[in-house]
Amino acid sequence: MISGTGKDAPRRCIGVFDSGLGGLTVVRRLLAELPGEDIVYLGDSARVPYGTKSAQTVRTFAAEDAAWLMRHEPKLVVVACNTASAYAVEHLRATLPVPVVDVIAPGARRAVALAGGRPIGVIATEGTIASGAYQQAVAEAGSTGALLTGSCPLLVPIVEEGRDEDDPIVLAVLSGYLRALQRARPAVMILGCTHYPLLAGAIAKLMGPHVQLVDSGQATALEVAEALATANLRNPRPAGGRLKCHCTDNAERFAAVASRFLGRPVEQVQWVGTDELTGPSPCRSCP
Amino acid sequence: MISGTGKDAPRRCIGVFDSGLGGLTVVRRLLAELPGEDIVYLGDSARVPYGTKSAQTVRTFAAEDAAWLMRHEPKLVVVACNTASAYAVEHLRATLPVPVVDVIAPGARRAVALAGGRPIGVIATEGTIASGAYQQAVAEAGSTGALLTGSCPLLVPIVEEGRDEDDPIVLAVLSGYLRALQRARPAVMILGCTHYPLLAGAIAKLMGPHVQLVDSGQATALEVAEALATANLRNPRPAGGRLKCHCTDNAERFAAVASRFLGRPVEQVQWVGTDELTGPSPCRSCP
Repeated sequence: MISGTGKDAPRRCIGVFDSGLGGLTVVRRLLAELPGEDIVYLGDSARVPYGTKSAQTVRTFAAEDAAWLMRHEPKLVVVACNTASAYAVEHLRATLPVPVVDVIAPGARRAVALAGGRPIGVIATEGTIASGAYQQAVAEAGSTGALLTGSCPLLVPIVEEGRDEDDPIVLAVLSGYLRALQRARPAVMILGCTHYPLLAGAIAKLMGPHVQLVDSGQATALEVAEALATANLRNPRPAGGRLKCHCTDNAERFAAVASRFLGRPVEQVQWVGTDELTGPSPCRSCP
Repeated sequence: MISGTGKDAPRRCIGVFDSGLGGLTVVRRLLAELPGEDIVYLGDSARVPYGTKSAQTVRTFAAEDAAWLMRHEPKLVVVACNTASAYAVEHLRATLPVPVVDVIAPGARRAVALAGGRPIGVIATEGTIASGAYQQAVAEAGSTGALLTGSCPLLVPIVEEGRDEDDPIVLAVLSGYLRALQRARPAVMILGCTHYPLLAGAIAKLMGPHVQLVDSGQATALEVAEALATANLRNPRPAGGRLKCHCTDNAERFAAVASRFLGRPVEQVQWVGTDELTGPSPCRSCP
């Protein structure tokens, strides 16, 4: 069993996984917050998206992703996918020998702190909203105000297609999704999907200056920094951390699109077959 | 080994698979053309979409889907997914003991026959266009005119979201994708994705009355009918065929959306775990 403690533990990597590219917006915030840390990233691009899949399927995929990351002996695992955070984080915390940070609770806590009892909005994928995870996380963070939710199924494919924030179609789709939230005028709105920071400018413009946006990736990076500091697991190196990217399909396409999410070029993306994730099933011929 | 021939063969089912729901537009045409046939459908909704995945991954998934269908002893298998047709149909023909009909060649042949040397257009997913499969199929069907292609990444999520054809966003997205094709004025345009028949009205309106649309599902159903007749495999029953639907995830969501694709209510959708598709991997502990 790999342990998060021990003399060499601070020099171990942070493991991050997502269903695809979106988690790289979380990595971008981690790199800014913790420039000395090594990061191993896995994007499950062969089985993307998780947002429309069932709880059971997402839990299975997330467990496989995390198990693969554990081969790199991380000191902490970040579930950089809202759907996987919604459905799988408790299972991962119960089974992994290292701390697990999700992307829902940090954003919810930050939003509750900023809102001070005023209404909070959250936009996310169909699956994340349906899971009730934000409703639960905001309540657990002690919210006393209302929570307004909006599911936005087209935003992920729109971002992945590479449309700009000022594309008229992007603005029309966003206007439709945000209409009810605009009328409700929440004090704070959580971007509850790792793809949405790429549309943050347009969302901020449509919601108006009275609504403060919470980027769950940024909130997550701050909690990771805090968790590592508390456990004496910060890498003593102040900068120069390395990022290693892996994906389960189409490494070329992944690398081409990834730089938009990461905000800098992605040098090399290594392909990992899904058979490496699922590993050997119990053999029916074995005694 | 299961064979497509034999005394009982005509009473066997037709096996149909797709990455998700889209293949049901092909089933709709099969039901209309061959109302006496039993159909077993598998939608791989746990791993949808195939359109953005690599050739190798699509080939693996398609082989697993087809192997699962073979347990139902079909007399013929329809690859009701354009991406799987593009990447996997040759492999399936080489490995399955029954005839395999894809959705690309029939539409291409129909388009070439209608075009009579004039330009042909095709719209499809990123993966299908990039595969070059339509370019090849149209050439093999003896086309002498130009082929104009357009990839339309947002149309599948738009259809799955349930937007109507007259939704302004649908029309704006379509207008953008079709602009170059509108200018080129092909004589015939192939709907090269099984989701697109649900937008056929809007596409026809935007392209104008001089462009004839080819629904690849309809062309496929006609080729299936012909293939069965030629091989004496038509079910002698004139009507009353049964449809059994299976999917690898979220059977409830599948059933709810499926009726729009099928044009009639879907009574029951049975869930099949992806572990049933992948089967036991070689066991590393075995001698």
